[in-house]
Amino acid sequence: MEEKDNSLSKSSSFQVENKVDLTTHSLLLSPGPTEIPRELLLSLIKDVRNPDLDPYFYDFYHGIHSKLTRILNSWGYKTIIMLGEAMLGLEASIINLLKENELGIVLSNGFFGEGFYNLFRLVGRKGEKCIWDEREPIPPDEVESCLSEYPEAKAVYMIHCETPTGIMNPIESIGPKINKFGKMLIVDAVSSLLTVPIKGEEYGIDVLIAGSQKALNLPPGLTINLISEKAWNASIENNPKTFYLSYSIWKDFIEKREEMPPYTHSINMLSGLDEALNRFIVESEENVYKRHEKIREASWAAALSLGLEPFPKEMRYSCPGLTALLMPKGISSIEAFNWIRNKYGITLGIGLGKLKDKILRIGHMGYTASIDFLLLAYFAIGNYLIEKGNVKYSDVSQAMEMIIKKSNI
Amino acid sequence: MEEKDNSLSKSSSFQVENKVDLTTHSLLLSPGPTEIPRELLLSLIKDVRNPDLDPYFYDFYHGIHSKLTRILNSWGYKTIIMLGEAMLGLEASIINLLKENELGIVLSNGFFGEGFYNLFRLVGRKGEKCIWDEREPIPPDEVESCLSEYPEAKAVYMIHCETPTGIMNPIESIGPKINKFGKMLIVDAVSSLLTVPIKGEEYGIDVLIAGSQKALNLPPGLTINLISEKAWNASIENNPKTFYLSYSIWKDFIEKREEMPPYTHSINMLSGLDEALNRFIVESEENVYKRHEKIREASWAAALSLGLEPFPKEMRYSCPGLTALLMPKGISSIEAFNWIRNKYGITLGIGLGKLKDKILRIGHMGYTASIDFLLLAYFAIGNYLIEKGNVKYSDVSQAMEMIIKKSNI
Repeated sequence: MEEKDNSLSKSSSFQVENKVDLTTHSLLLSPGPTEIPRELLLSLIKDVRNPDLDPYFYDFYHGIHSKLTRILNSWGYKTIIMLGEAMLGLEASIINLLKENELGIVLSNGFFGEGFYNLFRLVGRKGEKCIWDEREPIPPDEVESCLSEYPEAKAVYMIHCETPTGIMNPIESIGPKINKFGKMLIVDAVSSLLTVPIKGEEYGIDVLIAGSQKALNLPPGLTINLISEKAWNASIENNPKTFYLSYSIWKDFIEKREEMPPYTHSINMLSGLDEALNRFIVESEENVYKRHEKIREASWAAALSLGLEPFPKEMRYSCPGLTALLMPKGISSIEAFNWIRNKYGITLGIGLGKLKDKILRIGHMGYTASIDFLLLAYFAIGNYLIEKGNVKYSDVSQAMEMIIKKSNI
Repeated sequence: MEEKDNSLSKSSSFQVENKVDLTTHSLLLSPGPTEIPRELLLSLIKDVRNPDLDPYFYDFYHGIHSKLTRILNSWGYKTIIMLGEAMLGLEASIINLLKENELGIVLSNGFFGEGFYNLFRLVGRKGEKCIWDEREPIPPDEVESCLSEYPEAKAVYMIHCETPTGIMNPIESIGPKINKFGKMLIVDAVSSLLTVPIKGEEYGIDVLIAGSQKALNLPPGLTINLISEKAWNASIENNPKTFYLSYSIWKDFIEKREEMPPYTHSINMLSGLDEALNRFIVESEENVYKRHEKIREASWAAALSLGLEPFPKEMRYSCPGLTALLMPKGISSIEAFNWIRNKYGITLGIGLGKLKDKILRIGHMGYTASIDFLLLAYFAIGNYLIEKGNVKYSDVSQAMEMIIKKSNI
């Protein structure tokens, strides 16, 4: 039981500071949230405005919209940037598109696919799923037979990058098949955005959901939603019984220049988002995507030098923004995570669900997709494996060498 | 139609920077979002961690919980800090406490009370309301007759500080009456928190909702929810069909030390919240509340010197965190707002709804409850009234004098 003491004056014995020191150095090489580059951190505090009262807020917001739609090749889309974690956008995509008696199908090959499916029940909608091997991408050829099992389904949900296992699903081949069946396609692109090209319209995406804390290298707190005309009309027609999750509450703000956003937005986070998109544009999409490819290649080469097996069966099956490594027999990924965190102050990722203690993950997304960070990650992992008697110093040296070699363009 | 151009390379003619310059100086004296003091801005970027993976996150979160419950005299409450704007918490309080056929009553004497009532229909719940004069607080003596009209109602909703008009409702007298009737009491304390003492348990509050962008002086993005045992049990029993708005998804994180939060939280915003609470504690609650009273008194005296009538009929009816001023006949508050913003870079607030062009509002919340800011606000308002031929230089001087005099303790 906590001690009840209502006195809050200076002389009180109450501890003002939290006991935990959050200022200790830690390098975030987890697959989101990621390390935030200094320029982005500063952009988060560069200005404070009142978005409800600032006549320029509309222009500012729509400047961001314009950059996003260009990057995602989705000019016909509405863009809603919600204030909340990415889960907000995932739930909203179900609530807005499906009425209570309408069915959505989840194409699933991993923990996040399963999560999407569970979300259907939780929010009171009908959901079905088709499941595939979790070490391979969903095979486009088998999607049609799944869809034909559920002709009444209105929408199909899938994860672009299955972050817990590092599997990349080929929405570019699957999307057109889903469209052919007359279904809407909803894609969780939270950890793929800005790591690979996404062509919203070409792939037939109806709702694309992204978040701020992955390759955008911002803190959690913004959910980006790109919504096709078809999905937008469905959401307006459905008119779901919610304010905060509803697309339609954004209608006036998005369509009429004079309207305020439906709630007070965060200028700070939007400043960060704008700056993150500027960084992407200045580096150029070509260079950003090539950098992610090179770093993934370097990461796989380093893993092999240490005798580690990446979870995806082939490199071309994997997300460019992270590497998920299966731990050798007898090695706990949780123990490895803790050892590395305590010894080097580097935070990697572990697995989720039944793979929690079997997988160690390195995030290389946006800013963290760099040789420097990859060297640090494999140096740390290598030294842990030496400690466990699993590899030799020369293996670690070779891993380092592979990173330097493969990262050079 | 927007020009379609997919090239994002450096050589493209695409504008990287938004046209709007958000770095221009502007002093936020609106009644939320407020000016953010430098120390709080810096705390927002002082550290970046992964809350899902950091074993200290639980301690950090619960340190904040502990400070909040002490400040609000509410030791028996659960604290959920949601990642989203305050509207998220307001909607959640309806969704979690009332099933679809259950009734909530709104005690309303203003625009926000009306908003709460509209929210009931929007989220598919039954709502009724009792309405009182918007220039006076809700009279505690008349609450019982309202409640007896709706014996089946399960919960009663009210706004503590009606921010659009500056009216403070006496929850300390109304709360116990509502409890006597066996109803739950839900209070929107978004813009009253940290401007006046709130004793959660003594007032019989079942859910208290606050936001980050008012007297906490943070950006929008956090919704604080203090939930009594009665309300907590009701929400667990109701098990509403939502993930992001549900209280119960926080159950494991709040009750078991080993669990992760239900979604990735924002360490950055929580760092800011922790620092804001530290600032409050170091100044001491007694001094903070006294400062707000003094500033309100100074503001009313200055208003009278300029011949301006505050909207609340008496000072004791008004919120300590803002002053809502009725504009003299023929003076538009929107025009005054724009003139002051353009000439002095000061953002005040205007009215809402039918009072939009009739009311000008000065926020004096937390950091902005200071003599310096109040002098600037009345200097700007005074000069606008001189411009309009409404007051003389000597009236403005007298207003300044009143602020200096009344602010001195």
